[in-house]
Amino acid sequence: MTLLGSIEAGGTKFVCAVSDNALNIIERVSIPTTVPEETMEAVVDFFGKYDVDSFGIGSFGPIDVNPASETYGYITSTPKPGWNQFDFVGYLKKAFGKPIYWTTDVNAAAYGEYKLGAARDIPNSLYLTIGTGVGGGAVIDGDIFNGYSHPEMGHIKVQRHPEDTGEGSCPYHGDCLEGLASGSAIEKRFGKKGIDLPEDHEAWEFTAYYLAQALMNYSLVLSPERIILGGGVMKQAHLLPMIQAKLEELMAGYLALPPMAEYVQIPGLGDNAGITGCLLLAQKILN
Amino acid sequence: MTLLGSIEAGGTKFVCAVSDNALNIIERVSIPTTVPEETMEAVVDFFGKYDVDSFGIGSFGPIDVNPASETYGYITSTPKPGWNQFDFVGYLKKAFGKPIYWTTDVNAAAYGEYKLGAARDIPNSLYLTIGTGVGGGAVIDGDIFNGYSHPEMGHIKVQRHPEDTGEGSCPYHGDCLEGLASGSAIEKRFGKKGIDLPEDHEAWEFTAYYLAQALMNYSLVLSPERIILGGGVMKQAHLLPMIQAKLEELMAGYLALPPMAEYVQIPGLGDNAGITGCLLLAQKILN
Repeated sequence: MTLLGSIEAGGTKFVCAVSDNALNIIERVSIPTTVPEETMEAVVDFFGKYDVDSFGIGSFGPIDVNPASETYGYITSTPKPGWNQFDFVGYLKKAFGKPIYWTTDVNAAAYGEYKLGAARDIPNSLYLTIGTGVGGGAVIDGDIFNGYSHPEMGHIKVQRHPEDTGEGSCPYHGDCLEGLASGSAIEKRFGKKGIDLPEDHEAWEFTAYYLAQALMNYSLVLSPERIILGGGVMKQAHLLPMIQAKLEELMAGYLALPPMAEYVQIPGLGDNAGITGCLLLAQKILN
Repeated sequence: MTLLGSIEAGGTKFVCAVSDNALNIIERVSIPTTVPEETMEAVVDFFGKYDVDSFGIGSFGPIDVNPASETYGYITSTPKPGWNQFDFVGYLKKAFGKPIYWTTDVNAAAYGEYKLGAARDIPNSLYLTIGTGVGGGAVIDGDIFNGYSHPEMGHIKVQRHPEDTGEGSCPYHGDCLEGLASGSAIEKRFGKKGIDLPEDHEAWEFTAYYLAQALMNYSLVLSPERIILGGGVMKQAHLLPMIQAKLEELMAGYLALPPMAEYVQIPGLGDNAGITGCLLLAQKILN
């Protein structure tokens, strides 16, 4: 029986799963992200119980996805202690010697949503997570999109809301998208977590404005046919229609986009977009 | 002998050329863009003198580049009288019955620069023209990039310069990139053409700021390894180093980019990027 291994490697926890070839999950664990020696040992212990045929990894970044690079398969310049320049793919290859599909967490989620979620059968689609940070991945022509490296689209510049004079929270760029609209930006800028802010708080108008501009920019550059918005901040259900309305207004009919309720959606796979994407990528690398 | 046909279809003029398979140009003409009946008749007259084997077309847009679409090969929603929903590819197919590579003017220029210009052998690169309008095209993994449609990246939103309180000139979006940094925006906003503004005019600082933000956003979304800046506005040679310096500052070391003098360049093919790209695309569709 074919067994697929999936690792959704986040900055807080690693979610590992083993499934059969029909993607039925046999076992799934969550491992805290501490230092590589500890976390990776637990990962190897988990998968060591099975004869897994291939792995799909969706990792926090930045990572090296260029197969021609000497550091392909590494987590590169992360500030996370111990993980900087960690050879993730090399470690797993050494432990199991199996084929590995290696990409970012958001690219894996984008692939999951394209194959089995809210972008099913939409070969040009975009997945954005708005959580602690903001990150995005795209599927173009049915395959994960990378340029010279993988996108880092959470850090684009957007125009400031005229009434928003607060500082941005990104340590690199100040008021880039992540510095204005991520969960941690909302908490830092307004003194409360998003979940504790009333629906009519100005934070939501600002956040919707920034995210709508970001979707406008991504639409103009990548030309997706659907955009999926995931992550903790999107659990505030009133935010999606605000973003859709603002995007429609900002775009001003310039592109022939699908109706907003189709064009911008929440994940069809819920919080399982990443893990499902990783399993599908494990399957892809095997075939 | 193989003959290649090239049409760089702009809003003001069509540049048509015939070359041999080594891209030596045999004849080249410029035809004013009036209405399709007139312009296209002159195009057919020109190519009718040769037994052209294939065509590469780089057209003003928006155009339909989706081969599965019923209006593939059309110029779509242009306000230009007569050209709205014009079946460009169909017209040429009917006249000559030869293979046609159909893409945007900026995509063709991006391809030309990748094959023979300043992005030679750089398989992930971006070409931006800053002229009457602002438009961009990308080569990803050695091929022209399209999503569901072609990019329209000239209209992205960027943050306003704190000292720039002037209005933007884009009829759709006001102060999008094209509305702030195109040649026509500069003329409208500062009362003079860029060529007539002194080098220390604040217009250049604003323009460099907006273009640098745009390059930052494109870099984060598309991850090119090189960016080529063409078009009339870039003929002001003092602008390039201003953009490079501002981009470096804004990016704040977040991405591992090549040195700015390598990363951001002017076209290696000068004003011939488009026509060269079209000839190369004619060759590509033939092979």
